[in-house]
Amino acid sequence: MPHPLKIKFLYLLLTVFSASVCTAQEPGEWVNPFIGSTNYGTTNPGAIVPRGMVSVVPFNVAGNSELNKHDKDAGWWSTPYSWDNKYFTGYSHVNLSGVGCPELGVILLMPTTGKLNADFREYGSEMSEQVAHPGYYSTFLNKYSILTEVSATERSGISRFTFPAGQSNILIDLGNGLTNESGASLRIVNDREVEGSRMTGTFCYNDGTERPVYFVARFSKAAEELGAWKKMPKMDAEASWSATSNKFKYYKNYRAEMTGDSIGAWFTFNTKENEQILVEVGVSYVSIDNARQNLNAESNRFDFETTRKQAEEKWNKALSTITVKGGTDDQKTVFYTALYHMQIHPNILSDVNGQYPAMESFEIKQRENGERYTVFSLWDTYRNLHPFFSLAFPEQQLNMVNSLIEMYDESGWLPRWELNSTETHVMEGDPVIPVIVDTWFRGIRNFDVAKAYEGMYKSATTPGKDNKIRPDIDDYISLGYVPIKAQYDNSVSHALEYYIADWNLAQLAKDLGKTADYERFLNQSKSWKNYYDPEFGIVRPKLENGDFLPDFDPKQGENFEPSPGFHEGNAYQYNFCAQHDVKGMIELNGGKKNFVKKLQATFDEGNFDMTNEPDIHYPWLFNYVKGEEWRTQKEVRRLIATYFKNAPGGLPGNDDTGTMSAWVVYAMLGIYPVIPGDMNYALSSPVFEEVKIKLDQNFYPGKEIIIRQSGNPESKIKSIKWNEKSQKSFFLNHAELVKGGILEVIH
Amino acid sequence: MPHPLKIKFLYLLLTVFSASVCTAQEPGEWVNPFIGSTNYGTTNPGAIVPRGMVSVVPFNVAGNSELNKHDKDAGWWSTPYSWDNKYFTGYSHVNLSGVGCPELGVILLMPTTGKLNADFREYGSEMSEQVAHPGYYSTFLNKYSILTEVSATERSGISRFTFPAGQSNILIDLGNGLTNESGASLRIVNDREVEGSRMTGTFCYNDGTERPVYFVARFSKAAEELGAWKKMPKMDAEASWSATSNKFKYYKNYRAEMTGDSIGAWFTFNTKENEQILVEVGVSYVSIDNARQNLNAESNRFDFETTRKQAEEKWNKALSTITVKGGTDDQKTVFYTALYHMQIHPNILSDVNGQYPAMESFEIKQRENGERYTVFSLWDTYRNLHPFFSLAFPEQQLNMVNSLIEMYDESGWLPRWELNSTETHVMEGDPVIPVIVDTWFRGIRNFDVAKAYEGMYKSATTPGKDNKIRPDIDDYISLGYVPIKAQYDNSVSHALEYYIADWNLAQLAKDLGKTADYERFLNQSKSWKNYYDPEFGIVRPKLENGDFLPDFDPKQGENFEPSPGFHEGNAYQYNFCAQHDVKGMIELNGGKKNFVKKLQATFDEGNFDMTNEPDIHYPWLFNYVKGEEWRTQKEVRRLIATYFKNAPGGLPGNDDTGTMSAWVVYAMLGIYPVIPGDMNYALSSPVFEEVKIKLDQNFYPGKEIIIRQSGNPESKIKSIKWNEKSQKSFFLNHAELVKGGILEVIH
Repeated sequence: MPHPLKIKFLYLLLTVFSASVCTAQEPGEWVNPFIGSTNYGTTNPGAIVPRGMVSVVPFNVAGNSELNKHDKDAGWWSTPYSWDNKYFTGYSHVNLSGVGCPELGVILLMPTTGKLNADFREYGSEMSEQVAHPGYYSTFLNKYSILTEVSATERSGISRFTFPAGQSNILIDLGNGLTNESGASLRIVNDREVEGSRMTGTFCYNDGTERPVYFVARFSKAAEELGAWKKMPKMDAEASWSATSNKFKYYKNYRAEMTGDSIGAWFTFNTKENEQILVEVGVSYVSIDNARQNLNAESNRFDFETTRKQAEEKWNKALSTITVKGGTDDQKTVFYTALYHMQIHPNILSDVNGQYPAMESFEIKQRENGERYTVFSLWDTYRNLHPFFSLAFPEQQLNMVNSLIEMYDESGWLPRWELNSTETHVMEGDPVIPVIVDTWFRGIRNFDVAKAYEGMYKSATTPGKDNKIRPDIDDYISLGYVPIKAQYDNSVSHALEYYIADWNLAQLAKDLGKTADYERFLNQSKSWKNYYDPEFGIVRPKLENGDFLPDFDPKQGENFEPSPGFHEGNAYQYNFCAQHDVKGMIELNGGKKNFVKKLQATFDEGNFDMTNEPDIHYPWLFNYVKGEEWRTQKEVRRLIATYFKNAPGGLPGNDDTGTMSAWVVYAMLGIYPVIPGDMNYALSSPVFEEVKIKLDQNFYPGKEIIIRQSGNPESKIKSIKWNEKSQKSFFLNHAELVKGGILEVIH
Repeated sequence: MPHPLKIKFLYLLLTVFSASVCTAQEPGEWVNPFIGSTNYGTTNPGAIVPRGMVSVVPFNVAGNSELNKHDKDAGWWSTPYSWDNKYFTGYSHVNLSGVGCPELGVILLMPTTGKLNADFREYGSEMSEQVAHPGYYSTFLNKYSILTEVSATERSGISRFTFPAGQSNILIDLGNGLTNESGASLRIVNDREVEGSRMTGTFCYNDGTERPVYFVARFSKAAEELGAWKKMPKMDAEASWSATSNKFKYYKNYRAEMTGDSIGAWFTFNTKENEQILVEVGVSYVSIDNARQNLNAESNRFDFETTRKQAEEKWNKALSTITVKGGTDDQKTVFYTALYHMQIHPNILSDVNGQYPAMESFEIKQRENGERYTVFSLWDTYRNLHPFFSLAFPEQQLNMVNSLIEMYDESGWLPRWELNSTETHVMEGDPVIPVIVDTWFRGIRNFDVAKAYEGMYKSATTPGKDNKIRPDIDDYISLGYVPIKAQYDNSVSHALEYYIADWNLAQLAKDLGKTADYERFLNQSKSWKNYYDPEFGIVRPKLENGDFLPDFDPKQGENFEPSPGFHEGNAYQYNFCAQHDVKGMIELNGGKKNFVKKLQATFDEGNFDMTNEPDIHYPWLFNYVKGEEWRTQKEVRRLIATYFKNAPGGLPGNDDTGTMSAWVVYAMLGIYPVIPGDMNYALSSPVFEEVKIKLDQNFYPGKEIIIRQSGNPESKIKSIKWNEKSQKSFFLNHAELVKGGILEVIH
């Protein structure tokens, strides 16, 4: 007998489908939030609005080894959701998307029925019939016959649970979570509201990144019974008197502050068949009061459909910056899903009242206007994501740069990998420099460049251990490279990042008239050549005495195995990473012919890694050798087709807060910013017949960029026209592009 | 080589000693706070003021099985301190004295030196050279060469730590503690202040008694380094990446809210040799704000000597209500220490602003004047402690009765065993009734007797399971007794308590003109006879069908072993517990001669238990048989001499929040309120030559009572005179006594 809920559910699906068919297609309808939601992409299908502080994510990575293929506690695990898992234990309200380390994934909201049980190993349910659209997610809980639907505003989540008749429970679980931090507090305010905090931190198992996140949860219906719970510590001798040793203890009607490692609150209702109960959860990193203000300001008072519609509209607006014609449905889906993933992080940190926790301190600051952003995975994102924001979302990029400069003001250092106002010290280099310099040269200049320069200069010059961003700066400056001193010290990776950062800083210094600085940093940027070993014809770790590291295997470091001198890669994936000095790379690698040969061999012999950042610009390097541009076109086409799919596993590596997505968006557009800080886009074959990129006329002279391709896109590009003028090279400058116009690519 | 600190310490001791010798002796100097501080008395030597919310107690019952004879986690353990233990892990700031269940013993303040270590199993130190006076305690920490001294105000503690030169640390440990609850929060406010909360509850392993206690701790010196810590949960697979799995993790400079099961904060200083750092800790059961208000209102701004002096003065004032002449030093010490122990609980619950948590709810109430009291162990204290308060501290007793009536107002029930505004449901009966009725008949009537009567009537009459105080009321009323239905249901003990409560209620009903109620409750009170089994000549558990429980062993229940029908005792210890009907007891036990014979045999055959309450009135029952009063004199003398000593083990059983102490104080005065609610004191041999009891003339007509004894106190009393008038009986009525005068007891 079909379950009435399921009938309702199918009807809903049909409605959504009909809508897709009958109305003009909005870009959000091309988004498949399940793309990347395996442990490759580490994205998730949760409901979120563009750059929202809150995402409402189906948490399914704990508690059941039969229904789940992956468990967060069974190994390295960095995402609250896996497409491969089916054991649902609630919706987590703060989450990271596309990162490679466990963090956040807390404040879990779980509906159940029947007797109360607060143990996620027992209360979880098999999930089925998942539906995800931008700003909306739904799944059916088989064990309880509960339909769950969620949506979000910037700083709050809304959940709608459709219950069967009988005792229904809604749990707020502050114990379970993805983060490796623990500890929470809560207070039941009344029979419709609970407030509290949950510790987060230890991102990538690093100390010093701990912060509480605060919340207020509000129910559409008054609970008939409620209380708090705590998982009690294990007792030994005393267990003979304690009924709750090592068990979940239930504090019925408890209303004072509850604290502990693993606590929660429950709200119980007598529901009629198909009765819906809604929960809104407001969040803040400042205080419970601010979480309440955020909720009050953004809530539609349990009007789920309005919240969902607003979320959809926000996405359609954000995604319609680019419109496409042609291409297959899958191509459109890959493209718009990538554009969607690029607008999850960096995300809003500031509350509706402008308050946010200051960088590397526990002070509360207030912004007059604009948003304070967080989640800056700069080692990833400087390569393409921020240049893309500058092109398509310059207002947001300006706010991000201003956020970065504020962080310098607050902590004395520009960040490297910032998370909720903490420096996580993850990855290496000084990637904030290319982000800021690139923004400047793209023409977005309404920020305090003097202060930004001061901060960049500081990390580029502060000697010794006091340098929090470049810990090995002394060697870098005195030797011109970072020598390998410990087996897995990532020394080469460190230095290669410093070179490109210094090249960027040099460009800005020149623009600001700081000639001595320009020369100093430009010179430093050239020292990458120190690593080139003529014997192997490749970069190689170098000892302090100038000798290369003995027993060198350029292959070592494949598939994320550790490699002396190289971080998350091997010599092949780092060999062409001095893109700020392509001319130098060509020379050192034996001239144009040998350079092309070695570069092509990297692809042909399987030494190119599409799953991580260091080499993702490689395909466009062929463009720098006249006559070899067809290789770029071919490799880019091949990589798109091979690695980017309309499927949960359709992102080749961690999305890295949108970096992989930016790669495929650029690649499909047929333009790529190969050298951050350099304004030339390398051109290749666009995927779509026609693309329109809206330009923000507060920043750019042009209104829109149209990219058209014709002919057989699988063949070589025959000619390129910019505003009807034939192009001699396979590059187009940003300044030219943002005048607006039509780029025609003829195959 | 003598340690300079030790020299200082000895000097201090000498100073104290000299003071004792040279000045007129204050009663506080006769107090030895170590009496009862083994697991018999379960008192402790911590610093406290009369009825203080805060006591600062050397916590030494955890973490080291070599230095400690007893460990709180190795078995049933109910006190934060043991004289037998030497491993000190800090000063706990809220504590219970003289109870038989673990609770409170939290907010530990610990000084250490050298490298920071937050694990109490490691940071603890051997303690030595303990000194305790009312309002003052000191011990030397051998491991660190730190002299520690503590004192208290009503709602705050002060600690003075004298450090050696070098790195010195002060830890606030919110993990370790006596309670079986866990969970805490803290926030470091600045480099001199930390605030937070700690969960307490599960008194006697009962649920529903959970409350957070809030605190603010302030340091006399700014810390040079500080932070929070947390004991991290154990990880499995993830432990390979986490440096802190199952370890204490240190969050240096962490300033946001820290939460968890086992957390704390540290403040580190560079100290000079003998540098003193002081810490003041304010406490509240309402909020952190109130803890701060309490601290601000009562603190002497780190002036330790003033705080200590004020505490001493408060004790001297409280103890000088009774002055004694004669007796040995040990007798004086036993007497004044008992009087001291009687003024620890009930203690203040309300904050300086009058706020307190309402009974059995989480509302915050405000008192206009007077204190809200807490820790009402009424099954114990109704017998003698509250009658004593009525005599010697009528203002306090009035406030206590008003507190009890407020509890009824707030929760709908008068309490049985109240702890921090929760009903712990510990022990049985309806002991609040004799407390209130006894107070009324002693002439303290400035309370809402109508409301009190309403509350008492409710617990005495509400049928069925709705009766929270008398769960077996239906059987009690329909059968006239509580039948045994489960092996260890304490049924006889329940009923015996109901009888005496009903007798009391009857007396009040009569006084209020409620004749029908009077007759009803009086009749109920007589049904104790149901339990008298002529076969054994003793009370015996009875089945629902009226048969006595088969396989009866009247001895079973000795030494706290379980006994069918009886709670913490056996048939002997409950046989003469219908003291409201002494006449009936005499009749049923075969007339005066047999009654005396059986009563005497109870003592002679070792069936009297001095360590627990049910039979503690037995020695005075001889007074009810003309000519046998010498037995009372003899037994009371013997029991005082045998069980009450100037030694850590000098209290025969748990002090039961002052009940045992009240026993010995009365016994030494030579008067005893055998029947709560009956105003006749039974008279026996006073210990001291002369005693003066000051009367509070706001309540009583007399100014003072003088009790003199002459002759050989080891012999029988020859005659008794009250205000020069020879007494015919060995009883004196309260109303007569409080007119003031001289009671002469001639041996």
